[in-house]
Amino acid sequence: MTGTQHPNWEQIHNQTLEPYLNAQLDTMVQQLMQLIRYPSISQKPDHWDQMEPLLNAVSAIMQPMGFETEILQSPGCPSLLATLRTSPERPWVLIYNHMDVQPAEEPQWTTTPFEPELRDGRVYGRGSTDDKGPALSTLHAIHCLQQAGLPLPNIQVIYETEEESGSKHFGQILDTYRDRFENPASILVSDTIFEGEHPAITYRLKGLLRAEVSLTTGTQDLHSGMVGGAAINPLNVLVQALSQCVDAQGHVTIPGVMAELPPVSEAERASLQRTAALFDLAKLKADTGQAELYSDQAQELLERIWLRPTFEVHGFEGVQTEPGVIKTALPYAVKAKITMRLVAGQDPDRVLQQLTDCLQAVHPGITVRMLGASRGCFSAVDNRFMQAAVAACQAGFGREPAFVGSGGTIGALPEFERVFVGAPLVLIAQSLMSDGYHAPNENFQLQQMRNGFKTMAHYLLSLADL
Amino acid sequence: MTGTQHPNWEQIHNQTLEPYLNAQLDTMVQQLMQLIRYPSISQKPDHWDQMEPLLNAVSAIMQPMGFETEILQSPGCPSLLATLRTSPERPWVLIYNHMDVQPAEEPQWTTTPFEPELRDGRVYGRGSTDDKGPALSTLHAIHCLQQAGLPLPNIQVIYETEEESGSKHFGQILDTYRDRFENPASILVSDTIFEGEHPAITYRLKGLLRAEVSLTTGTQDLHSGMVGGAAINPLNVLVQALSQCVDAQGHVTIPGVMAELPPVSEAERASLQRTAALFDLAKLKADTGQAELYSDQAQELLERIWLRPTFEVHGFEGVQTEPGVIKTALPYAVKAKITMRLVAGQDPDRVLQQLTDCLQAVHPGITVRMLGASRGCFSAVDNRFMQAAVAACQAGFGREPAFVGSGGTIGALPEFERVFVGAPLVLIAQSLMSDGYHAPNENFQLQQMRNGFKTMAHYLLSLADL
Repeated sequence: MTGTQHPNWEQIHNQTLEPYLNAQLDTMVQQLMQLIRYPSISQKPDHWDQMEPLLNAVSAIMQPMGFETEILQSPGCPSLLATLRTSPERPWVLIYNHMDVQPAEEPQWTTTPFEPELRDGRVYGRGSTDDKGPALSTLHAIHCLQQAGLPLPNIQVIYETEEESGSKHFGQILDTYRDRFENPASILVSDTIFEGEHPAITYRLKGLLRAEVSLTTGTQDLHSGMVGGAAINPLNVLVQALSQCVDAQGHVTIPGVMAELPPVSEAERASLQRTAALFDLAKLKADTGQAELYSDQAQELLERIWLRPTFEVHGFEGVQTEPGVIKTALPYAVKAKITMRLVAGQDPDRVLQQLTDCLQAVHPGITVRMLGASRGCFSAVDNRFMQAAVAACQAGFGREPAFVGSGGTIGALPEFERVFVGAPLVLIAQSLMSDGYHAPNENFQLQQMRNGFKTMAHYLLSLADL
Repeated sequence: MTGTQHPNWEQIHNQTLEPYLNAQLDTMVQQLMQLIRYPSISQKPDHWDQMEPLLNAVSAIMQPMGFETEILQSPGCPSLLATLRTSPERPWVLIYNHMDVQPAEEPQWTTTPFEPELRDGRVYGRGSTDDKGPALSTLHAIHCLQQAGLPLPNIQVIYETEEESGSKHFGQILDTYRDRFENPASILVSDTIFEGEHPAITYRLKGLLRAEVSLTTGTQDLHSGMVGGAAINPLNVLVQALSQCVDAQGHVTIPGVMAELPPVSEAERASLQRTAALFDLAKLKADTGQAELYSDQAQELLERIWLRPTFEVHGFEGVQTEPGVIKTALPYAVKAKITMRLVAGQDPDRVLQQLTDCLQAVHPGITVRMLGASRGCFSAVDNRFMQAAVAACQAGFGREPAFVGSGGTIGALPEFERVFVGAPLVLIAQSLMSDGYHAPNENFQLQQMRNGFKTMAHYLLSLADL
């Protein structure tokens, strides 16, 4: 797909965007460093008190740009909603980023994660590229166009602070404050990553089902010399039951699940094949520490990660774990920890039922307790918003973006799909995996910031006219 | 099977055994309490220094009875060998008991485990019935017959102190001190238990194979949102591989293993059926805390415990175990902890190879490390020693014994079979499961001590004449 460049792009680029960047990049870097100093780790409850001061600091950046801001509270961490009205004739766009970050305890950090440093054209610090930097480049793109009197859609921005911990309260925030939101024509998200060195538009995200699988067959450990072979070993049974769910090649074998998968279009398969041709398998091997893969074909691997559900056994409770020791005692109450990554269109409740049926066919006493579930997301790639996104990447990053899927989850997106029915989700990446995304020594390249700024400017310019 | 009562039994019983018991039972109890005061827990290295003083105390009891004694050292815990020569024309009998005990940390103890108490006709304390009490009643039976000038075989007694920790050095002791041992016509063991309230002769014991099953597919935990479905989850693979070894009904399914099982004779099946008719299923349910069983038929349960190999998964290493928490990280190096109980005639090395082949058929990278292996034992029940044992039980306990198997292992027995080839093993029980065998509030009933004393006297009298 090739997008259409904005007719005045060259002029806007040279006379408006470049001068703004030359004048404001230092400010943008200072603001990013200011935001990084808040250790907004949402997975750690003792960091939750960082969220509101952080959002207040963001608000203090946005208000001079003309945004009205409001903190939206929840039983968990809050979000910040900011609104910029440009013209009643223009559509509304909702922009999402998140201000919380991953933990930063990896020993490989060479800087202090929450004391940012500018070095060699990069801002180092936890949250620099995920997702505070991309939030700021987008924000400044809006401000630049607005200052220059260029056409902009009406804009609402929402900054979540629970993305890295599963967006548990985000749906509740949307519901509670529904009246504060306009109906967006589309939703722009910049919390995704490049495909290697290629700009990328993510059009598929997976959902996630987390569950405990339990079986209790007694009330005490038993001596296998006394009753081994006569008393049911619930761990033997769970092993047998779990083996029915996934085979040694990683294919989900729960009856019904694969048969009910939504079909994948020929167009999507062709797009995946194009992306597979760009895919750096050696880099994946390096990034995973030379992990053994189920296939050595990029296309097969991408299909597995993007298009097929997964079933993973992560661990057990109630079993022996002491290194090097094997006692002959039989367990009596065991639990398995499993997750499934679900593709868009799979209903977690339906899959849970199919999983439960599959396990209980081995032993009716097996129970399944869902600890969490989210749906996958799919953005059709044949709409004008996607065409605008393609053109924006070409304009900002200088090359056509790859359409990519992901095995991961952005918890807010299914909530957007639920609340703002029909509004296309557009996910434009500014981050590089190689810049320490979810990893030590996270950094945001100033070059990515500049190009992300231009990409977002082009995209928003296009939306004003749509 | 019915044994033949010794022709002078009534007279010997009334004129020799009863008077001895009446005069000596207090002494026997005092000696038992003295031995219990040594906390000879072989599973605990900090208790190993109890073994030699304990064996010296036993030696001090035996020497006045006419035994020559010697402590046999090993790299682990020692054994005591005691020899009583009666007549060059008579056969040699080797008698085995053990002087080490189980740990005693169960909160249900109402007495202090190593401060014995005589109460209500029972001696309470750890080791009272397993195996110090039966050792003493056997010893006094010898002494009683010897004092009375009645015929006895030549006797060697060996007391091990590593039985409860797997008899790791027992074979080495037999080999190192082989020249101290005469060639026994048979070996008498009293370290087994009644079948409920029925005296029992154990003719089958299982072997035990303990192994770690490992698979490593990478060098670091991976994020299932990044590479889930593409990177091999070694825990998924182990689950699949282990599921090939045993089914949900507890049947071993490793190719070749069941096909190569030694056949079970019709006579043995008929004997098992007779014992099954005595079997108290309700008591088994109560003893196991109402554990769910693979069958509700006594015969099927006994066949499972006695005649069929088992495969048990006990636990895992390298997996998530935190209660209630499921992280999406994929493991990269996991181990399963498994045991197999083997029946007599199964070769642990052969089974290990079959197990390895079965697992590697699922993934060639799976490795199996054996942590320990012992063979099962089988005593033919159609020899004169067994006939003598049956008659002895009838004489001493007043009822015909049941022939029973066990899922458990007595580590010394395969070593006896190896070193003293062809010497039948005769296992005569004096202990009741319900008296806290391997459990809290272990006790030895004085009535069991009296009857065990008489049973052993009858058995040894018979052997002198064989």
